Amino acid sequence: MVVVMKAEATEEDIQRVAEKVRDAGGEAFVSRGKYQTIIGLVGDTTRFTSLPLQLMPGVENVMRIGKPYKMVARGLHPAPTTIKVGTAAVGRDSFALIAGPCAVESEEQAMAAASAAKAAGASILRGGAYKPRTSPYSFQGLGERGLEILAECRAETGLPIVTEVVDASHVEHVAAVADCLQVGTRNMQNFELLKEVGQTHKPTMLKRGMAATIEEWLMAAEYVAQRGNQEIILCERGIRTFEPATRNTLDLSGMIVAQQETHLPVIVDPSHATGRKELVAPMARAALAAGADAVMIDVHPNPEDALCDGPQALTPDEVAVVGAELAALARALGRRMA
Amino acid sequence: MVVVMKAEATEEDIQRVAEKVRDAGGEAFVSRGKYQTIIGLVGDTTRFTSLPLQLMPGVENVMRIGKPYKMVARGLHPAPTTIKVGTAAVGRDSFALIAGPCAVESEEQAMAAASAAKAAGASILRGGAYKPRTSPYSFQGLGERGLEILAECRAETGLPIVTEVVDASHVEHVAAVADCLQVGTRNMQNFELLKEVGQTHKPTMLKRGMAATIEEWLMAAEYVAQRGNQEIILCERGIRTFEPATRNTLDLSGMIVAQQETHLPVIVDPSHATGRKELVAPMARAALAAGADAVMIDVHPNPEDALCDGPQALTPDEVAVVGAELAALARALGRRMA
Amino acid sequence: MVVVMKAEATEEDIQRVAEKVRDAGGEAFVSRGKYQTIIGLVGDTTRFTSLPLQLMPGVENVMRIGKPYKMVARGLHPAPTTIKVGTAAVGRDSFALIAGPCAVESEEQAMAAASAAKAAGASILRGGAYKPRTSPYSFQGLGERGLEILAECRAETGLPIVTEVVDASHVEHVAAVADCLQVGTRNMQNFELLKEVGQTHKPTMLKRGMAATIEEWLMAAEYVAQRGNQEIILCERGIRTFEPATRNTLDLSGMIVAQQETHLPVIVDPSHATGRKELVAPMARAALAAGADAVMIDVHPNPEDALCDGPQALTPDEVAVVGAELAALARALGRRMA
Amino acid sequence: MVVVMKAEATEEDIQRVAEKVRDAGGEAFVSRGKYQTIIGLVGDTTRFTSLPLQLMPGVENVMRIGKPYKMVARGLHPAPTTIKVGTAAVGRDSFALIAGPCAVESEEQAMAAASAAKAAGASILRGGAYKPRTSPYSFQGLGERGLEILAECRAETGLPIVTEVVDASHVEHVAAVADCLQVGTRNMQNFELLKEVGQTHKPTMLKRGMAATIEEWLMAAEYVAQRGNQEIILCERGIRTFEPATRNTLDLSGMIVAQQETHLPVIVDPSHATGRKELVAPMARAALAAGADAVMIDVHPNPEDALCDGPQALTPDEVAVVGAELAALARALGRRMA
Repeated sequence: MVVVMKAEATEEDIQRVAEKVRDAGGEAFVSRGKYQTIIGLVGDTTRFTSLPLQLMPGVENVMRIGKPYKMVARGLHPAPTTIKVGTAAVGRDSFALIAGPCAVESEEQAMAAASAAKAAGASILRGGAYKPRTSPYSFQGLGERGLEILAECRAETGLPIVTEVVDASHVEHVAAVADCLQVGTRNMQNFELLKEVGQTHKPTMLKRGMAATIEEWLMAAEYVAQRGNQEIILCERGIRTFEPATRNTLDLSGMIVAQQETHLPVIVDPSHATGRKELVAPMARAALAAGADAVMIDVHPNPEDALCDGPQALTPDEVAVVGAELAALARALGRRMA
Repeated sequence: MVVVMKAEATEEDIQRVAEKVRDAGGEAFVSRGKYQTIIGLVGDTTRFTSLPLQLMPGVENVMRIGKPYKMVARGLHPAPTTIKVGTAAVGRDSFALIAGPCAVESEEQAMAAASAAKAAGASILRGGAYKPRTSPYSFQGLGERGLEILAECRAETGLPIVTEVVDASHVEHVAAVADCLQVGTRNMQNFELLKEVGQTHKPTMLKRGMAATIEEWLMAAEYVAQRGNQEIILCERGIRTFEPATRNTLDLSGMIVAQQETHLPVIVDPSHATGRKELVAPMARAALAAGADAVMIDVHPNPEDALCDGPQALTPDEVAVVGAELAALARALGRRMA
Repeated sequence: MVVVMKAEATEEDIQRVAEKVRDAGGEAFVSRGKYQTIIGLVGDTTRFTSLPLQLMPGVENVMRIGKPYKMVARGLHPAPTTIKVGTAAVGRDSFALIAGPCAVESEEQAMAAASAAKAAGASILRGGAYKPRTSPYSFQGLGERGLEILAECRAETGLPIVTEVVDASHVEHVAAVADCLQVGTRNMQNFELLKEVGQTHKPTMLKRGMAATIEEWLMAAEYVAQRGNQEIILCERGIRTFEPATRNTLDLSGMIVAQQETHLPVIVDPSHATGRKELVAPMARAALAAGADAVMIDVHPNPEDALCDGPQALTPDEVAVVGAELAALARALGRRMA
Repeated sequence: MVVVMKAEATEEDIQRVAEKVRDAGGEAFVSRGKYQTIIGLVGDTTRFTSLPLQLMPGVENVMRIGKPYKMVARGLHPAPTTIKVGTAAVGRDSFALIAGPCAVESEEQAMAAASAAKAAGASILRGGAYKPRTSPYSFQGLGERGLEILAECRAETGLPIVTEVVDASHVEHVAAVADCLQVGTRNMQNFELLKEVGQTHKPTMLKRGMAATIEEWLMAAEYVAQRGNQEIILCERGIRTFEPATRNTLDLSGMIVAQQETHLPVIVDPSHATGRKELVAPMARAALAAGADAVMIDVHPNPEDALCDGPQALTPDEVAVVGAELAALARALGRRMA
């Protein structure tokens, strides 16, 4: 960290800061300029960040210089990690398609979507049994029955399952069925849920909060990692901006920054980011071209009848086209579709 | 709802939409213009919103016209509601000061902050025992012991307590001590927590999510109300914007809009919104002048040693000044400080 | 437009709205529901939008249903337009690379950047002679001398030039040299500049304002078109969001929406959007994969010495690699790099 | 500035940075820590900011520590400045009401609005002759004739006039009539206009760009000041956020930060910020309570017939009530309404 002193700070003010840092076990280097003095803090910054140095007399500003995340950071772990999800894998050496229904609505609908996903080349099946919905009057998911249907879909197609968990108390029974747990955008800073998920050994897909900075997203991942679970897949799904034409704004450059900062795989959900089916295919291609490790796409046998997010769902025919396009594009980019 | 048809929509397209609406138990009024046809949907809109009409052939756009919230809305409940919190009350006929430590750090610190709050004219004590922190390496609160200390502070000062609950499984034991439960900004759409809180009969302070629209905030309140708990206080605490000079941007006009839309009290937290102690007093005055039902302010006996959010905490002397200023301003505005 | 009446609106309120619309030459269709009445307005909506109907008694809400842009819209002009810029072209049937220095700093620097652009496969040369800079203490561009240097670069490389114009009074002399005028993000709603540019017959590249909605961007283009100049290229260059890791957030899905809404070409500037050189290549690929009609990239012979935006500039070697990658990717996507 | 070196930076990398700084006339202080080395840069930071140090080998990050604005900053000018506008004044020792029509539409309308403004206690008359409108199909203002009408209003009421100038070439003739020039939100970074206004000796009201940070706003003021005109009034008018319930989000805490950073007066426009007339009075009160130096309010004799921004205009009766409320509130706060 760096402490910038006010122009009018006294020598005593400067010494007081330096002592406080030394008391906390750090070193303080003082650079005296003509107009302003800067104090460089060196040592274990975790200790200093809890000191409210900006309240000390003569201090103008305190700036953090290191990264607050450790376990998920590239620093100690330069090579990218590949996460195994059942028989499939997500990582930087292949490109994966994850597809399936937004919500499991019935056995028939889920099976049709799952078959479509497999036919399109997906290696992982998505599907929500517990649905966090903005309105209490909207369809809330089938719950336990939804999990059973997903297990049937897996048995039928052979695809491992990623499904959302919405409360710490659900983790155990969802983990009993799922191959990969999903923590949704609205729960990215539900720290009790993160801690619970961190105590399982299940791969976990952590969606970016729609108003979370990349740093906050990685700190949420750090909560999971710190409890012992480093099997984390990060998923960019659009951030909230002033633009109303799309549901959210897909932050592809943020996805790349996340890949640079962490060794974990980073994937993209163009369906939830845009909320519009005609944008799913081009944004999935864009995600692949930008280097995403996977894309996750909503499929529904009959979007007109969907109970959740119908406007963004692709039909089986449409997802088949997208799957073929992505496979061809991956080849052209020197990657292999998993 | 209104369905806007494309210029090239056929008569068949129009009839198909009208039938779908009638099948769902609604009425459809067709307005044929020279360039464009508009279909007005009348009836129980909850049924229509789940129909993905925008996917039907010939449809250009679907616009919702009613409000999605019911129980918290002004419509059925025109008079403003006053919520009792222990011996205190929050509502439009008085102005309340809520104050106390951001986090309970020790018996001594909490008691000093509580006494300062009381001396400043506060009628409710705030204090966090469970703290949702961005970093897993930051102080996470004293938990159970924090609740005990808060109970001691109440015994000593006579002030009722508002304290945060961060997980559905904690609701019961936090509610056993608290006079008012707080759901924090990061949990505003933790729907399992909202449902659980909705099953208690405890007053609940629902902070606005930092990236939540007013409508989403009221829908979160609707989750609580729908489960049977209408004792809800809404708290505006700043929204996320591009401006880095303050932690968030306090949306005072949003606070007023919330007051217009709902019968529930709406209060303001200038401490967490700005993150800077010198902005707390002027923004508290502004909140009162704009019509807020209460303000909630962080107090710490020694902000330089605070384990959480020190830069925004007022000292006992400072909060005493703010309390006196607010009481005088309330009188000038024809309101009474509770 | 649709006028939604309040539940308590009287028959008289309804008639008053209907008459006001008829007075303005429109038709009003009234749909009476059990709870709410909706009035559909049909006719020339330009007339109605200026009526402040929402102030009339009994009116709850007024919603616009048509698009406010006409000349740049797809409606009357379904086929995409290709814009000729000197010997080059920008449109949906090919993919163009535009490259060059952010600012012209000297003859030597500009020529080196221009040669690098050409060698990388660029068909158009970018370069700023007049630079709008946030700080008055930053390099403001070479002005007239910069234009002369650009003309020399064109003579040498054969590449047509796009360069920024920053004031209505400059349009004539910049247009005397430039093959394409650029209106920058900070001037997107400098309407006097737009009107002046609209009176030339020069192709014009209109960058999206960093806080402009897609609709506002197209309305800015409408200003140019309405004055007689329909030779407009739209350029997405990142929008302002809360995320600090990149300078702005490149809105690729917004680029696609703009392509759907207008017949004009839409291109992408990954250099200014991200502000970080390591993000330029992947975001350029993503733009191409999403369907952009061109990308525009900053080049500098020696970024460490750049007077403007050095951190985002590619070296000649780097842009050569990017050019080759884009050409290969374009082929794989069935497009031809111009 | 502070340069943070990468953990793996070599001694040579460190020396290269230090030399580059010394070559530019500065001093470099090196703090070597166990994990990371920090280089403090001292001297004229204007010189260093143009150096792209972050591109040098071994550099992780470069952080600016000083403020980029000089002439408008508090540093050299600790006492607040009061700006005279004709017979009126705007500054921290009084509170001013500025009122009048959004746009001058006719002699009759403008005169009625001006009289209402005066009767309500306004000391300055606002009114637009040149209107920057999002749509080319909207009313664009009366231009020259509008200025004449404003001059007549001044003759009649005695109130000095603030009116917008939208292009550098208009400055001279608008300044011939106006007592105070206004630069609007869309032109905040129209640097040619700022430079031109900076060469007049007219007081200038500089509205904050709707997506401008406070720092960018002050840098725009610096452009005006640097050309010799320090008679600047800053006006906060709402920033663009994700919240659709209000036109923009009034950033009152940003207003206070601007007052802390600069010696110039800072005022608030609640009419344009909210776009809704029922929010104007409470937000004007809030602005006063937060310490704004003035508020600026739209008035129209008949808002239902307004050609511009009718939904936010107060009637003469309404503005009279607001004026009286503000005068009483100012007294209660120990301020005098000018």
